[in-house]
Amino acid sequence: MNESLTIALDVMGGDRGPDVVLAAALRVLKKRDDLNLLLVGDRDIIESKLAAMSNADRRRLPVQHASQCVDMDELPSHALRFKKDSSMRVAIDMVKQGRAQACVSAGNTGALMATARYVLKTLPGIDRPAICTSLPTITGHTWMLDLGANIDSSPEHLFQFALMGTELAKAVDGNAHPKIGLLNIGEEEIKGNETVKEAANLISRGDLNYCGFIEGDDVYSGKVDVVVCDGFIGNIALKTSEGVAKMISHFMRREFSRNIFTKTAGLVALPVLKAFRRRIDPRRYNGASLLGLRGTVIKSHGGTDALGFASAIEVAAVVVKQQVPEHISSHLQAILAERKAV
Amino acid sequence: MNESLTIALDVMGGDRGPDVVLAAALRVLKKRDDLNLLLVGDRDIIESKLAAMSNADRRRLPVQHASQCVDMDELPSHALRFKKDSSMRVAIDMVKQGRAQACVSAGNTGALMATARYVLKTLPGIDRPAICTSLPTITGHTWMLDLGANIDSSPEHLFQFALMGTELAKAVDGNAHPKIGLLNIGEEEIKGNETVKEAANLISRGDLNYCGFIEGDDVYSGKVDVVVCDGFIGNIALKTSEGVAKMISHFMRREFSRNIFTKTAGLVALPVLKAFRRRIDPRRYNGASLLGLRGTVIKSHGGTDALGFASAIEVAAVVVKQQVPEHISSHLQAILAERKAV
Repeated sequence: MNESLTIALDVMGGDRGPDVVLAAALRVLKKRDDLNLLLVGDRDIIESKLAAMSNADRRRLPVQHASQCVDMDELPSHALRFKKDSSMRVAIDMVKQGRAQACVSAGNTGALMATARYVLKTLPGIDRPAICTSLPTITGHTWMLDLGANIDSSPEHLFQFALMGTELAKAVDGNAHPKIGLLNIGEEEIKGNETVKEAANLISRGDLNYCGFIEGDDVYSGKVDVVVCDGFIGNIALKTSEGVAKMISHFMRREFSRNIFTKTAGLVALPVLKAFRRRIDPRRYNGASLLGLRGTVIKSHGGTDALGFASAIEVAAVVVKQQVPEHISSHLQAILAERKAV
Repeated sequence: MNESLTIALDVMGGDRGPDVVLAAALRVLKKRDDLNLLLVGDRDIIESKLAAMSNADRRRLPVQHASQCVDMDELPSHALRFKKDSSMRVAIDMVKQGRAQACVSAGNTGALMATARYVLKTLPGIDRPAICTSLPTITGHTWMLDLGANIDSSPEHLFQFALMGTELAKAVDGNAHPKIGLLNIGEEEIKGNETVKEAANLISRGDLNYCGFIEGDDVYSGKVDVVVCDGFIGNIALKTSEGVAKMISHFMRREFSRNIFTKTAGLVALPVLKAFRRRIDPRRYNGASLLGLRGTVIKSHGGTDALGFASAIEVAAVVVKQQVPEHISSHLQAILAERKAV
C-alpha cells in the first residue's frame, strides 16, 4: 500500500469559493486512496456544505478552522500582516508544521507567493521562488517558468529557474534530461538583451540540457521541455496565449452559429470539435507549482471549476511523492560546488 | 482622379524572393489605378520574370537595378556596411531621394530597421523607431507596438510608442480617439515594473486617450485600439500568439483527419472552417509599419505569399496618403511644447 499523504486545501480561496474546492476534493478522493485532504477555512461553512454531500468520506476530509479570507485583489503585504488566520495562511502553516505535505490554493497569487515565501522560506541557494506550469504543445507538453512571481530577473535567477524547471520535468514526466530553452527574441546568439545572454552562459555551464534560445512560437511547438524566462515576460506570454485561444474559440462558435446550415455542420462536427477542445482544455493543465520553497505549494487558477482544481491537487501529490524540493536542493548544491571547484 | 503614388518594392527580400513580390505587385496594380510600383533588385531577374507575366502593365512597373541582396540572417551592421547596393538599401534610398513615397520589404527585419534609420533618420523628438502592426481582436483589430525594434525601452520611449500608435490608428481607422493600453502583468496600479509605471504617468499626462494597464489576454479582446509595450515583450507576445494559433490549427486538422467519420464531418464543416480561418488569416494583417522615421517603410512577413505581400503594399499606400509621419511629428511637437509650458 502507498504511504498516505495529506494535502491542505485553501477552501475559501479563488473566484468561486468553497463549492468548487469541496467538489474537487470529493472527486479526487473517489479516484485515489492514498490521499487525505485537510480542508482549511470557515468550519461552519465547510461542515454545512459537507453535510449536504452524501458521498463525502469524512475520515479522509479533516477540517482546520481559519477565521479569515484573503481577497483576490488584496495587497500581498496587507494579507501577510493582517490575515494571519486566513485559510490561505493556515493552509501554508499546515505544511510548515508537517501536518500536511503540500497545500493547494486558488486564491490571490501575489499573497500566496508572499505568504509561502515568508512561512516556508526558500531552499538554500534559491534567491526567489518561481511559478511554473505545464502547457500543451504539438507533441505533448512543456514546462514554463517564471510566470509572474519575479520581474527584472537576473541571469542567476534565470539559471535557478532552469534548474528548478528541470527537476520538475524530471519528476513529473520521468524525463532524465529535459531540454531547456531560454525565451528570447531571436535564435541567433547576437540578439536579445544582456540578461538573457548572460543567463545562457550560466545555464550552459552546468549539467543542464541547455538547447539555446527559443522564440515565442516555439513555446507550443514541442521543441523544448522547459521554457525559461523572466516572470514579466512569462506572464504576458501566458496571458496573451489565453487571449488568442479565447478569440479563436469565439470566432469558431460564431461561424458555426451563423445560420441553419452552419448550425447543422456544427452538429455533425460536434464530436470532433469536442475532442479538439479536450486537447487544449486549460483545466487539464491547471496547477502551477511555486518552486524553490521548502515545501510544496500549488496555485490553482482562480476561476477554475472542480475538474481544474482536482488537477491542481493531483499536481501537488506528484510533486510531493517525487520529492521535487529535495531534488532541486541537492542538484543546486552539486552545481554550486562544481562552480566553486572550477 | 487620385494623385498617383510610387511605392518601392524590395524585390529580392524575404524567404520566397521575387516571385511572391512580383505576383503581389500585379495583384495590387489590377485593383488600384493610383499606384506605381518601383521594382528594386537584379534587373535581369526582374525583366525575365516580368516577360513571362503576360498581364504586367509595364508603364506602372519601373525597375531600379540593385546588384546585392541582404541575407535573412545577416547582421544588420554587416548589411549596413557592405550591402550599399542591396535591393533593400536602394529601395530605402528611393524614398530618401523622393523617387518613391514609401518602400516595402519582406527582408531581414534588423537590417531593414538599421538601414531605414541610417538613411531616413528619425523624426524630430523620436529617439527610436518602433515596429507596429494590426492584430485581429474579438471586436475588430488593434495596433500593437513595439514588436521587436527596441529592447529595454525607457518610459519616454513607451510614451513615444503610444503617440505613434495613436496616429497610425487615427489615420488608418479614422478613429479620432484611439484607446491606449499599456501591457503589464496586472491591472492594479501596484503591479508591474518601474518602467511601465513611469510610462503610465507620461502617457496619461498628454492628450492621448490612455485607458490604463492591460494584461496579455486583453490584446485580443478588443478592449483597446493601441497596445503599447517594449519590443522584447511585444515580440515574444506576438510570436507566442502565432505558436498558439499554429498548435490549435494542427490539433484541429488532426482531429478532423482521424477516420472516415471525422473526415466526413470535416467536409460538412469545411465552409464554416474556411470562413473561420479567413477571419484570423495572418496574411490579411500583414504589413508592419516602421514608425518614427522621416518616411514610410513597411515590413512584410518574410514567409508570406503574394496575398500577404499585397496587403503590405496596401498598408504602405494608406500610411503615405494619410501622412502618418507628418501627423506623428506635429502631435509630438504639440505635446512637448505643452510639457515645457507646464
